[in-house]
Amino acid sequence: MSGHFVTFDGQAAPIQVPTGTLLVDAARLAGIQISQPCGGQGRCGRCVVQVTDGKVRTRSALRLTPEDIAQGYVLACQSVIEGNISVQVPPQDKIERRLTTDRTIGDVSVPTSYSFATSQTIRRVVLTLPAPSMDDQTDDWSRLQTALRNRLGLTDVQASLPLFQKLGAALRASDWQVTVVLDLNPDAPERAHLIAIYPGSRENEPLWSAAVDIGTTTVTLWLVDLITGQVRAQVSEYNQQITRGEDVISRIIYASKNGGAEELRGLVTGTINQLLRTACKRVKANPEDVIKATIAGNSTMTHLLLGLNVQSIRLAPFITSVNHLPLTSAREVGLELFPDAVIDCLPGVASYVGSDISAGVYSSGLDETEKLTLFMDVGTNGEIVLGNRDWLVTCACSAGPAFEGAGVQDGMRATEGAVEEVWIAGKNAPHPYEPTYRVIGNGKPRGICGSGLLSLLAELFQTGVVDKRGNFNTTLKTPRIRDGEHGYEYVVEWESQSENGRDLVFTSIDLDNLLRAKAAIYAGFTVMAVSVGVSLDTVEQVLIGGSFGKYINVEKAIQIGLLPDMPWEEFQFLGNTSIKGAYYALLNQQARQRVTEIASRMTYLELSANNTFYDAFMSAMFLPHTDLNRFPSITVSD
Amino acid sequence: MSGHFVTFDGQAAPIQVPTGTLLVDAARLAGIQISQPCGGQGRCGRCVVQVTDGKVRTRSALRLTPEDIAQGYVLACQSVIEGNISVQVPPQDKIERRLTTDRTIGDVSVPTSYSFATSQTIRRVVLTLPAPSMDDQTDDWSRLQTALRNRLGLTDVQASLPLFQKLGAALRASDWQVTVVLDLNPDAPERAHLIAIYPGSRENEPLWSAAVDIGTTTVTLWLVDLITGQVRAQVSEYNQQITRGEDVISRIIYASKNGGAEELRGLVTGTINQLLRTACKRVKANPEDVIKATIAGNSTMTHLLLGLNVQSIRLAPFITSVNHLPLTSAREVGLELFPDAVIDCLPGVASYVGSDISAGVYSSGLDETEKLTLFMDVGTNGEIVLGNRDWLVTCACSAGPAFEGAGVQDGMRATEGAVEEVWIAGKNAPHPYEPTYRVIGNGKPRGICGSGLLSLLAELFQTGVVDKRGNFNTTLKTPRIRDGEHGYEYVVEWESQSENGRDLVFTSIDLDNLLRAKAAIYAGFTVMAVSVGVSLDTVEQVLIGGSFGKYINVEKAIQIGLLPDMPWEEFQFLGNTSIKGAYYALLNQQARQRVTEIASRMTYLELSANNTFYDAFMSAMFLPHTDLNRFPSITVSD
Repeated sequence: MSGHFVTFDGQAAPIQVPTGTLLVDAARLAGIQISQPCGGQGRCGRCVVQVTDGKVRTRSALRLTPEDIAQGYVLACQSVIEGNISVQVPPQDKIERRLTTDRTIGDVSVPTSYSFATSQTIRRVVLTLPAPSMDDQTDDWSRLQTALRNRLGLTDVQASLPLFQKLGAALRASDWQVTVVLDLNPDAPERAHLIAIYPGSRENEPLWSAAVDIGTTTVTLWLVDLITGQVRAQVSEYNQQITRGEDVISRIIYASKNGGAEELRGLVTGTINQLLRTACKRVKANPEDVIKATIAGNSTMTHLLLGLNVQSIRLAPFITSVNHLPLTSAREVGLELFPDAVIDCLPGVASYVGSDISAGVYSSGLDETEKLTLFMDVGTNGEIVLGNRDWLVTCACSAGPAFEGAGVQDGMRATEGAVEEVWIAGKNAPHPYEPTYRVIGNGKPRGICGSGLLSLLAELFQTGVVDKRGNFNTTLKTPRIRDGEHGYEYVVEWESQSENGRDLVFTSIDLDNLLRAKAAIYAGFTVMAVSVGVSLDTVEQVLIGGSFGKYINVEKAIQIGLLPDMPWEEFQFLGNTSIKGAYYALLNQQARQRVTEIASRMTYLELSANNTFYDAFMSAMFLPHTDLNRFPSITVSD
Repeated sequence: MSGHFVTFDGQAAPIQVPTGTLLVDAARLAGIQISQPCGGQGRCGRCVVQVTDGKVRTRSALRLTPEDIAQGYVLACQSVIEGNISVQVPPQDKIERRLTTDRTIGDVSVPTSYSFATSQTIRRVVLTLPAPSMDDQTDDWSRLQTALRNRLGLTDVQASLPLFQKLGAALRASDWQVTVVLDLNPDAPERAHLIAIYPGSRENEPLWSAAVDIGTTTVTLWLVDLITGQVRAQVSEYNQQITRGEDVISRIIYASKNGGAEELRGLVTGTINQLLRTACKRVKANPEDVIKATIAGNSTMTHLLLGLNVQSIRLAPFITSVNHLPLTSAREVGLELFPDAVIDCLPGVASYVGSDISAGVYSSGLDETEKLTLFMDVGTNGEIVLGNRDWLVTCACSAGPAFEGAGVQDGMRATEGAVEEVWIAGKNAPHPYEPTYRVIGNGKPRGICGSGLLSLLAELFQTGVVDKRGNFNTTLKTPRIRDGEHGYEYVVEWESQSENGRDLVFTSIDLDNLLRAKAAIYAGFTVMAVSVGVSLDTVEQVLIGGSFGKYINVEKAIQIGLLPDMPWEEFQFLGNTSIKGAYYALLNQQARQRVTEIASRMTYLELSANNTFYDAFMSAMFLPHTDLNRFPSITVSD
């Protein structure tokens, strides 16, 4: 091998890699994980490392200053190893594990109509078969088939080879008494899939299942006892894929690299498996006893989970491999439930409107209301739906992850140390233009999360620090506004008071990112309304799902023109509508059927080649909007 | 670990094993395969090894003389390691590879009515799909579903997750032209299973499939081009399981040991995979392009292949896990065809009448003839069928593997060095009672194979060396009859003329084994005839399948009372009826359906608890039979 030695700071032995190896890949070989929030595109600058000895060939040095470069700093995802080198890797941002430690079940109750025996398709029955004899040498499977025909009227029962492998021993272990778990076919009452067979009776035990929501940022799992319908544990955690790209586009790019798709697949199954173990431990269940999972997520997340091709999602004309996925098994997907557990991936609509939205629409009740309703799920992506029980249109706004604190210089996720709300003193205050803020955890600030950014932008606009075009008013007499490295910026906190000893700033670039994000979403509303010939004024309620809704301040969101100017009581925050939809679909066959109908019914508007969208976007690139008639409650001082 | 060191002769380093390890298992750990024809029951004495240093605890020393024991000889399958030892393993009998090298296709022609497009369920079609666009963002799977609906009227197409994983790339690799391979559902014209998708057109290529017969001793594979129906290669080889038991009972016992079932499974899949590679190489095909296999075999063989529980096959009341197996895939079974290839295991009847018999009956035409017919397939086991197009009864005779040369002191398989036919001079000949014989390969004899034993017994009986009760006539003046280690015996060849320098003998015990085997089969005929109230005299034809039929001399088989006394022209030798049945079932859906009907229709007689059988067996323990009226053509001298 024509190889080179790479020595990582703090590691005893160098590793050897072939010429042409990327520095990030060498690091991974050495067991060092380097964050690549942009998916390895060389855009975010977060994978910076210092080459202290030797040289690398760099493809791009975006975001590095000449001084940085002179000191040997390079982007690890853009550096090709062509000789022996020594490398120093700065401490990486840890993904704080925000495993829900709350042991109370919040925000959900079992539908009152729920009945294990009739609501959903899983059946568990205890059978006692007649033992074989020299006069009745029927084979085991025929014997079981007869019992299932007599008991449940099933004439066409399928099972996997591993089930057949267990059959003989299971029947004989407890004197021909067995517990079987079946998944009935809702379209054909005579057909069923035999999932599991256990010796003896399990009559009085729970029957475990799970609802899962795979978000780009966060994965949530609810452990459900199908017998009672109760959610027995709720857990959530960051999607371990985050270090390989913060948004779906970055993940898709990362998946296009050699082995990238497999790595991402392993990271998300790892996340789900970890959540499953945690949830099961809490109720003293065994993950191997979980016999079904219903999964919602955006199309990129479900495609990555299942190992489907994601490249066509990113490239025009933006096509998924499968929207309506057939049932599969835990074994095939690589989840550590019971190996033959049914995995039901709910149906999505299009490349950027996935099953999280179909499930969310169902759980929000939008598809059954008479009211003209706007539904939005702004998490890492922004998907919106307009409609009522008669019609539904949907679109995805490429808002970017700014509302999750990504792509912003001092942005961060909504965890300890994040500024989550900001107030700015007006021009007549004792200390004009000075900020006060609230930090999650009440310590010194480390950065600003989505709700903090939104609040900050609204306050800057209200106090005239930023004008309606999004430009800083540099004539104001305050040291907070200054000409920084990347243009004008507002200093939220000085280095002496910040956690990391650096000034905490909000730059013109950040402002522009935020403006684009809110404009994309508002333009989405406009395009949907135009497409069906209604006015946004006639919208009767706004339903907000997703993590975005959790902390948002409606007043400020209206002030910047992100949300339409409506009375506050017409906004409803529904929390994680996707996991709720998955839970209902798990528990109820009619609900499951409705999610499919919603996915099939929704008219998807592709915005990327839509002129109306472009115009609406440009009009929304103002604070709050060029057309002030749309925001009667907002007073704008020139 | 409280371990002991075991040094095998000829190996540099000792291995370490825990107390209680069996010597055979230690040998396997050291990479030494010790033959266990009886499956490790301590019955056959073939696994003998010499402990040259240290001691083992022996559970049984059957077949060892006091002298053997004094010299440290032990049965490896019965010796428990409880201290450090050194072991010398004698050279093991090699399993001669009798891979068919004949490159001509024998004994089979494509049914004249065969048509790829209509005879069987596999379809291969080339589709050109409309490319997606911004105006048609249908997902890949829906696009393909539409094409399949338009082209083949399919509305319910299933596919495995790995197929979905390939879908996106396959569609885009050749400009939306793909070749798909489907397996139609014969019971529901709208349903199909999508097996494979390839970019571009494969229109002019063969479409590979296989018919497989898994015998206890020999595995046979025919490689078939489904487009033409032609058999393009025929290969067969010993079942690699042989070293783990020569008959099905020994295999089942071996499977009950820790890891035994998995080992046997690996050995038979290994055999099939090897055959597949050989066959494919011959016609320059890729094993991964074989998209279907139809498999026949006795119930133990198919259960071991699929990893099903075999223990209940051996124990009363003798129950299989599954007789009518659903379709499975190469991936699940562990065969190295195309991973999603359809594996169709043909249906069997009972524990000891498997799909080799259902397939054999079909290919023999027995189920469609008006003639009262006796069908027999005597290989390692003996299964027989009586009937015609109106009714079929079947039973399995636990004949033992004597006709394959097993369980006989100087018995061997029909390979090089085996005595395959014997003639004995009569009392008035110049050298009375002296034998002449024919050896396979024309060298010195190493042992006697099944046809040789049958011939030998008939000649011994005809010349009066053995009387009708099966006793040696010790009054005859010939050195060939002598009192040996295991009672009286006849010397077929002296040590000076034998290959291995030992006298080649046929002992009283061997004679008894052979007598029992032929009596079991003849008693089977009798019981079947009694059960349906017909006389064996009324049988109009005898169809003989299996390896047994290949070399058998009908005259001598009648002389010893193995076959009923009928004119020779009423016997037909059909060769391997099982593989032929599998081939027809692969090529023709009606044939496949008939095999299922035959398996369901056949009335199985359990002989093990049958008094009629016991009486018939005792009556048949004479040469040729107690009831000489049954054998009018045979003259018996008292």
